[in-house]
Amino acid sequence: MQDKLNLMIPGPTPVPENVLSSMSRHPIGHRSKDFQKIVQETTSQLKWLHQTTADVLTITGSGTAAMEAGIINTLSKGDKVICGDNGKFGERWVKVARAYGLEVIVVKAEWGQPLDPNKFKTILEDDINKTIKAVIITHSETSTGVINDLKAINNEVKKHSEAIIIADCVTSLGASNIQMDEWGIDVIASGSQKGYMIPPGLSFVAMSEKAWEANQQSNLPKFYLDLKQYLKTVNQNSNPFTPAINLYFALEASLTMMQKEGLNNIFARHARHQKATQEGVKAMGLKLFAEQSFGSPAITAVEPENVDAENIRKAMKSDFDILLAGGQDHLKGKIFRIGHLGFVNDRDIISVISALESTLDKMGKLNAPIGQGLAKTISVLNEE
Amino acid sequence: MQDKLNLMIPGPTPVPENVLSSMSRHPIGHRSKDFQKIVQETTSQLKWLHQTTADVLTITGSGTAAMEAGIINTLSKGDKVICGDNGKFGERWVKVARAYGLEVIVVKAEWGQPLDPNKFKTILEDDINKTIKAVIITHSETSTGVINDLKAINNEVKKHSEAIIIADCVTSLGASNIQMDEWGIDVIASGSQKGYMIPPGLSFVAMSEKAWEANQQSNLPKFYLDLKQYLKTVNQNSNPFTPAINLYFALEASLTMMQKEGLNNIFARHARHQKATQEGVKAMGLKLFAEQSFGSPAITAVEPENVDAENIRKAMKSDFDILLAGGQDHLKGKIFRIGHLGFVNDRDIISVISALESTLDKMGKLNAPIGQGLAKTISVLNEE
Repeated sequence: MQDKLNLMIPGPTPVPENVLSSMSRHPIGHRSKDFQKIVQETTSQLKWLHQTTADVLTITGSGTAAMEAGIINTLSKGDKVICGDNGKFGERWVKVARAYGLEVIVVKAEWGQPLDPNKFKTILEDDINKTIKAVIITHSETSTGVINDLKAINNEVKKHSEAIIIADCVTSLGASNIQMDEWGIDVIASGSQKGYMIPPGLSFVAMSEKAWEANQQSNLPKFYLDLKQYLKTVNQNSNPFTPAINLYFALEASLTMMQKEGLNNIFARHARHQKATQEGVKAMGLKLFAEQSFGSPAITAVEPENVDAENIRKAMKSDFDILLAGGQDHLKGKIFRIGHLGFVNDRDIISVISALESTLDKMGKLNAPIGQGLAKTISVLNEE
Repeated sequence: MQDKLNLMIPGPTPVPENVLSSMSRHPIGHRSKDFQKIVQETTSQLKWLHQTTADVLTITGSGTAAMEAGIINTLSKGDKVICGDNGKFGERWVKVARAYGLEVIVVKAEWGQPLDPNKFKTILEDDINKTIKAVIITHSETSTGVINDLKAINNEVKKHSEAIIIADCVTSLGASNIQMDEWGIDVIASGSQKGYMIPPGLSFVAMSEKAWEANQQSNLPKFYLDLKQYLKTVNQNSNPFTPAINLYFALEASLTMMQKEGLNNIFARHARHQKATQEGVKAMGLKLFAEQSFGSPAITAVEPENVDAENIRKAMKSDFDILLAGGQDHLKGKIFRIGHLGFVNDRDIISVISALESTLDKMGKLNAPIGQGLAKTISVLNEE
């Protein structure tokens, strides 16, 4: 039905009405006092969201632009880095690092498995001359629905190395409790169309003091993504280049909503929806692609048996106007992914589980009585 | 008055109501068929606007990102280039080129003067071994209100060189008749918050076949701005990274409006408004900063005598809710700039001229009878 689509993909995620309407305001001058107020306010809100006193910079671009900025502003040609790779995004950061001539040690895990902190430990321990400059990892690997143990990997980095840690938190920030300062994460990259509940177009890089120290040595060429320029201007509540002004209106509106809800409530909501989704899916006889214990709070990947996952996805869209994500690369047709990231309520969760039961039943592929998945989901949602 | 601001700066420019409201639609999936249709449609519209059959790629980022992309996708470290510099933006492209290790021959003109095509000719003629790989120029130099003679400079390039020409058309595209294919411009960069009549956040790079040939040799590191990735995906009506979906809605709406108006009508409207502004300003005894013959169709820079230009700007904003641009760098306080770019009608022109007369009169700085400026403006607007 026209205009009735519910986005349950890992991004873009649903956008609240008041955030949408904020974007249809006429733009104002980006060098005006009124806009400076918005930059000042959102910068302070971003620090709150990142649980940090460090600088959080806003770039007009995608999450990839933010991650690339984090990498190329702290490293130099030939620098040795470890890069975790257990999915599409981990793969991407290896490519970015190599595009800039970094020497990349790739730590792999199978798609659907989390990165093993011990592998990082071993490499870092063996690096007696401390030649490894950075550890780059994806926190929530969107392509597989796996959350990597950022805290544990960071602990190994802190114990055995002086390397900085650069984290892709694009689909974990605002869904999972990431304590940038407390843990000592050096670079966090994120994007607007995720936990932020706004449309795509803005991305964010948080940089610790240690990251800025590394920046002093960094010699990789850059201009639009040169974070020094963003730092200089953010201190004047401004931007180095004309930013996406209307998305700033949206950012202010959504971060204000998030502050009203409170960080812990946001994390609890995501954890609850994650569990309700996982349990409901299992109860209707479907297999989780990633084991429940390392499932992402943003997205649940499901591996249906004896049925093309793309057919389920298509039916969910045509019959219920629910958009799910498919599998990428070799997982296409093998998995589908249910996003429960950002502006998601209990109704979204019960409706996706119900619709999934109906869809499988219609296909003759439901391996459980109708309602069994939903019953489990409801019982999780009703847990005290 | 709240919400009553009229943007008469070189960007962001005014946005039509239907374009604004298109942005408050809920985002759709960027890998969906519905979004592919939008990419297909806007790509075809962009080619129309660029008067080209070449590829026009859409980047989520500012005009600087598009210009940087044009430079770093066609050149290699150590390449020799000529870069025109007669204002803030010319200066910027010199910086970008140097940031990537290009050898830059700077062709300068005073701020307020146009670049001299003969200077390009001399350097290109002297380059007997054809070592110069690119000529980089700003078409409309927004900081000074000067339009450089892109066609004449391009003619010198074509006559004396095999270099590609990379043009910053950020504030000229959609205001001035730029015939990409007919003239043989290789790279054109532009940005959404200008002649496009949409808010900032999208930028565009058009690439000729010759530019793509140069791309084969280009070894400068890039990832987010790697245009090969954009080319590959645009051919599938898609994007390499999550784009600013809601700005695409706006783009489609505004380009549809532009197609209805027609290219020649758009150019004629800008030329008429430019002349009406220039003549009105002169008739009220003010001095044009750039000579009338090389004034930009996007913006008219005015150099008031015996009065701080910033005070005029402030009064125009507080008394009439008209936002003008100030002077940049050493021109701050010396000039103000009247934008007449994009979604501008005759009412905007007569109101800015009238308000300027009133403001100068109130300050005791009007050196002509009240109404003399407006009379001249009206007579230009009423010319057949």
